[in-house]
Amino acid sequence: MEKKYISQAVIKRMPRYYRYVNEMIDMGINRISSKALAEKMGLTASQIRQDLNCFGGFGQQGYGYNVESLRDELAQILGLNKDKKAIIVGVGNMGRALTKNFHFERSGIELIAGFDLDFGSIDTVNGPIAIFPIDNVDSYIESNDVEIAIITLPKELASTTAERLVRAGIKGIWNFTSSDLHLQGYGIPIENVHFSDSLRTLSYNMEKNNV
Amino acid sequence: MEKKYISQAVIKRMPRYYRYVNEMIDMGINRISSKALAEKMGLTASQIRQDLNCFGGFGQQGYGYNVESLRDELAQILGLNKDKKAIIVGVGNMGRALTKNFHFERSGIELIAGFDLDFGSIDTVNGPIAIFPIDNVDSYIESNDVEIAIITLPKELASTTAERLVRAGIKGIWNFTSSDLHLQGYGIPIENVHFSDSLRTLSYNMEKNNV
Repeated sequence: MEKKYISQAVIKRMPRYYRYVNEMIDMGINRISSKALAEKMGLTASQIRQDLNCFGGFGQQGYGYNVESLRDELAQILGLNKDKKAIIVGVGNMGRALTKNFHFERSGIELIAGFDLDFGSIDTVNGPIAIFPIDNVDSYIESNDVEIAIITLPKELASTTAERLVRAGIKGIWNFTSSDLHLQGYGIPIENVHFSDSLRTLSYNMEKNNV
Repeated sequence: MEKKYISQAVIKRMPRYYRYVNEMIDMGINRISSKALAEKMGLTASQIRQDLNCFGGFGQQGYGYNVESLRDELAQILGLNKDKKAIIVGVGNMGRALTKNFHFERSGIELIAGFDLDFGSIDTVNGPIAIFPIDNVDSYIESNDVEIAIITLPKELASTTAERLVRAGIKGIWNFTSSDLHLQGYGIPIENVHFSDSLRTLSYNMEKNNV
């Protein structure tokens, strides 16, 4: 992949394309025009062509997109075919919800263990993964080539724990702590999940509906 | 508020502005230039001015933004000062995580009850709210003026339950079921929380880091 500047707005749409394309495959659709894809996604056809052209195109004039090829190209762009290993740090309700219900394998990720501070009070097996005390996390990351840490700890513990995980070798953080992590200088991608942004967007759209 | 077209991209940034402005208030910052706000948020100063001008501006040339006034204006735009009532439908791990840890009041929302299908097997009180059997949901919505339903049910039950809730009077849905709800014709805003989009954005940014 060529290293050129692609805006975060385009990047944020890539997972959405991937999701829609997978839905089309589930529905038995083999090919689709940029116009039809645009309608489904609430975008314009030219925006879709522009977005996908950032990565080399993939459509053919007069034919549209072959849905399975597009899915494979998007998976490659997003790095979903790399089989990255992940651990979850903090196994409270949020951690359990993810462990039991989220399909990590659909994002090319293998969740291999959980870690918790309050080790004595929780089950040592949570669905498909074992839970270990946090003291062991550094050596576990190193010996198992863990790349991703999913942090579902209380806010107060988020930053210090994240720093520790990065020092132990973590390459990316999926942060559910509702506090933005400050890890300047490490150069590690962090994806913050902000539930409140989503709820406030809903609130805005409800207001607009009432005008 | 004037009813004019504002793009979803602008709307999606409003909750982020609100979040950053609140952080500044917590840090004791009274006023900020669009340039400084832009740097914090990874946007450009002109984009911020353009975004806020969609709703009437609020900044003053040479002064910047008064942070508290901006917070109040954003709260009004987002409808966070309306005290909407919400219920949660599905009280598994995800429902419990939200009930116990999420600050609904910071979005002007009061979570007043939970409902579950599998009523016999769960606690009837979960943190601050009582949990009722799903059979009672319709009359509860009507007699308590509930506007928002938070759906944390298994995917298979999402669409039929959402329709039932809207028929009972729900005005907006916050959907955690990882299946897009199809409620065409009802004209109800739905905000879908797609964890996988966020994880795949992380995956992309990790790949890019490795190039």
